[in-house]
Amino acid sequence: MTDLTKMGEKARAASRALAAAGPKKDKALLAAAEGLESGAEKILEENRKDLAAAKAEGMRPALLDRLAVNRERIKGMAGSLRGVAAQKDPVGEVVSGFTRPNGLKIEKVRVPFGVIGVIYEARPNVTSDAAAICIKAGSAVILRGGREAYRTNTAVEEILRASLRKAGLPEDCVQLVHDVSRESARAMMNMTGYIDVLIPRGGKNLIRTVTENAHVPVIKTGWGNCHIYVDASADVNMAANIVFNAKTSRPSVCNAAESLLVHKDIAPKALPAIKAMLDEKNVELRGCERTRTILGSSIVPATEEDYGTEYLDYIMSVKVVDSLDEAITHIAKYSSGHSEAIVTESYENARRFASEVDSAAVYVNASTRFTDGGEFGLGAEIGISTQKLHARGPMGVSELTTTKFIVTGNGQIR
Amino acid sequence: MTDLTKMGEKARAASRALAAAGPKKDKALLAAAEGLESGAEKILEENRKDLAAAKAEGMRPALLDRLAVNRERIKGMAGSLRGVAAQKDPVGEVVSGFTRPNGLKIEKVRVPFGVIGVIYEARPNVTSDAAAICIKAGSAVILRGGREAYRTNTAVEEILRASLRKAGLPEDCVQLVHDVSRESARAMMNMTGYIDVLIPRGGKNLIRTVTENAHVPVIKTGWGNCHIYVDASADVNMAANIVFNAKTSRPSVCNAAESLLVHKDIAPKALPAIKAMLDEKNVELRGCERTRTILGSSIVPATEEDYGTEYLDYIMSVKVVDSLDEAITHIAKYSSGHSEAIVTESYENARRFASEVDSAAVYVNASTRFTDGGEFGLGAEIGISTQKLHARGPMGVSELTTTKFIVTGNGQIR
Repeated sequence: MTDLTKMGEKARAASRALAAAGPKKDKALLAAAEGLESGAEKILEENRKDLAAAKAEGMRPALLDRLAVNRERIKGMAGSLRGVAAQKDPVGEVVSGFTRPNGLKIEKVRVPFGVIGVIYEARPNVTSDAAAICIKAGSAVILRGGREAYRTNTAVEEILRASLRKAGLPEDCVQLVHDVSRESARAMMNMTGYIDVLIPRGGKNLIRTVTENAHVPVIKTGWGNCHIYVDASADVNMAANIVFNAKTSRPSVCNAAESLLVHKDIAPKALPAIKAMLDEKNVELRGCERTRTILGSSIVPATEEDYGTEYLDYIMSVKVVDSLDEAITHIAKYSSGHSEAIVTESYENARRFASEVDSAAVYVNASTRFTDGGEFGLGAEIGISTQKLHARGPMGVSELTTTKFIVTGNGQIR
Repeated sequence: MTDLTKMGEKARAASRALAAAGPKKDKALLAAAEGLESGAEKILEENRKDLAAAKAEGMRPALLDRLAVNRERIKGMAGSLRGVAAQKDPVGEVVSGFTRPNGLKIEKVRVPFGVIGVIYEARPNVTSDAAAICIKAGSAVILRGGREAYRTNTAVEEILRASLRKAGLPEDCVQLVHDVSRESARAMMNMTGYIDVLIPRGGKNLIRTVTENAHVPVIKTGWGNCHIYVDASADVNMAANIVFNAKTSRPSVCNAAESLLVHKDIAPKALPAIKAMLDEKNVELRGCERTRTILGSSIVPATEEDYGTEYLDYIMSVKVVDSLDEAITHIAKYSSGHSEAIVTESYENARRFASEVDSAAVYVNASTRFTDGGEFGLGAEIGISTQKLHARGPMGVSELTTTKFIVTGNGQIR
């Protein structure tokens, strides 16, 4: 097994140089963007080996697609690196500051975490995306990618490390765990003293495993069981457009809507209108009894399990509710705390929904699909936090830092 | 064993009412302050029983003092409640907000965590202090106090719950775990879904146990192995005053200094001056060889263990160092990340120390004893965070909240 402690020590040493690196960080990121483009052939070659091995093991086509890299995708990865380089450096920002009556000047200053761990699954672009955000945030990063993408990830790692050297930074600012056994992931979850924060990026199971086993601090990024509630006063046309967009524009992502709640007074009108649009994409609806009464018995009956499921597919659970209160209670029970939306023309119901629904992002009359670092104007994101500690919602570079207090005086004692 | 799940459900239900309680929270806190004063006799009676039981079990005098409550201390507890009531309500603060080019208005709003757990040791005032801060932060709280203070804590709990009722709030906003077995503490660490954040308040062992066993998110509050580094250019008089204050003004607290580092060029002058002041309080110094050469062989030799120890007593480890770099490296190795100070007249060394020492609070020419919510102007504090996630340094009411995004539009889709 890889000696993770050794990697941890190297990362910690590298993080000290990185903490004060300033514009060298951007230099490294721009070099890496060029490196990805000029080294595309090598990446593609390694990716073909990964794909062949995965096919031989019988990987499903959807997963093969996630694993596959092509020139277009490499260009996208390079573009992301340039985007992160163009962002403002969060390190050194004075978040707040004041002078106390005794003359002590107290400043709260944004500083890097130190070492960030990222555990992720098949998508190779996460290797460069996550590394870039961590570097920009001033932290060294230890990456543990999926077993299937091992060769591709290693090719990307080499380019990243060469770029760091070129920029005069320690190459150990980025380290990929080359041992892709289950044990190496477990060991990473317990690198107390070496990893300051661990971020799992992937499906529900990965996140649960990390949350249950990690002793280092974790930021949970989200699976999303996102709801759209169509209130009695909703504009039916707007509701149908929002549901259609939230469900079908990209069903495999965490901010896609999975569950539709409709007030009973508007259901007879709204449900057929929404279904008509969703039919264009052959969305399967799984509904409660009242939904089936309105839309017909061809609708699959929804089970308790359906209401708690993130389908990530062209499937949506549907429930007719008696009131806003029932909608809010249903969401509190089944939601993963990611994103929820109300469609309403009622000022008071909009206000209550926004205030009482306890999710990372709560929408009034807009699609849940906007929960995204880019759409929120934060630039690149490392993930969407669905926990309440530290950061909630899309996490950009600034959310990947911490603060410290710098207190300056001239001999004050207490 | 107490059914903690039941308590969790009650807390969660209570938290919903509390989230929107506004000024009722202050009403409850003021009622509790009065309740503590008018109910002092009952508290004292229960405390006498706790003390008698603890004495019978052979508790050390220092710990008995921590457990003891008297009229003065009850007055102090009531005063703290009034102080928290007088603070600004953090809930509802719009932390940031902007309108995106597509017309979506995005606001980041401060909201309560929901349910906070606090595990603490002997001091009964933590029961009212912690409850007050959590209530003000809009969260229900589940308190698990020390076994020894059980009767006293229960008397305080009754007053707090009665005050909540008086203010029209659910009494379950405050619940004390009446089962003080080890199992109840362990169970509390795993109340995923019921406890949003768990805060251990106490010594190093308690904090380690919680960090290693909790599956709910934890905020580590600090034990402090705080350092003072006396630089070559230091004003010796200022250095002696700061060391004396940081070591002796209250040795049992986490922001007290435990270790002294002195540059070799100033050591022959600074060490005797510092020792002369510390001698007034009979502070035991444990020094390196060079320290013993300067101060005499009566100084106890410091072991490796000494440099990592939080004495919480009139003892201090001492090391003569060759350079600022050696001081910074020593601190990186032994510090608990709480508070460190440099005494210097060098602009560049002040700047480097402040930037390179990675602790919650870094001081230039001031005592580490200022790391405190009150001294930082934050009002009451729940503890000093020594972790990097969520909050670092003194945590006031505002640090005990989270945020969510409220996004309002008029039909935006992506």
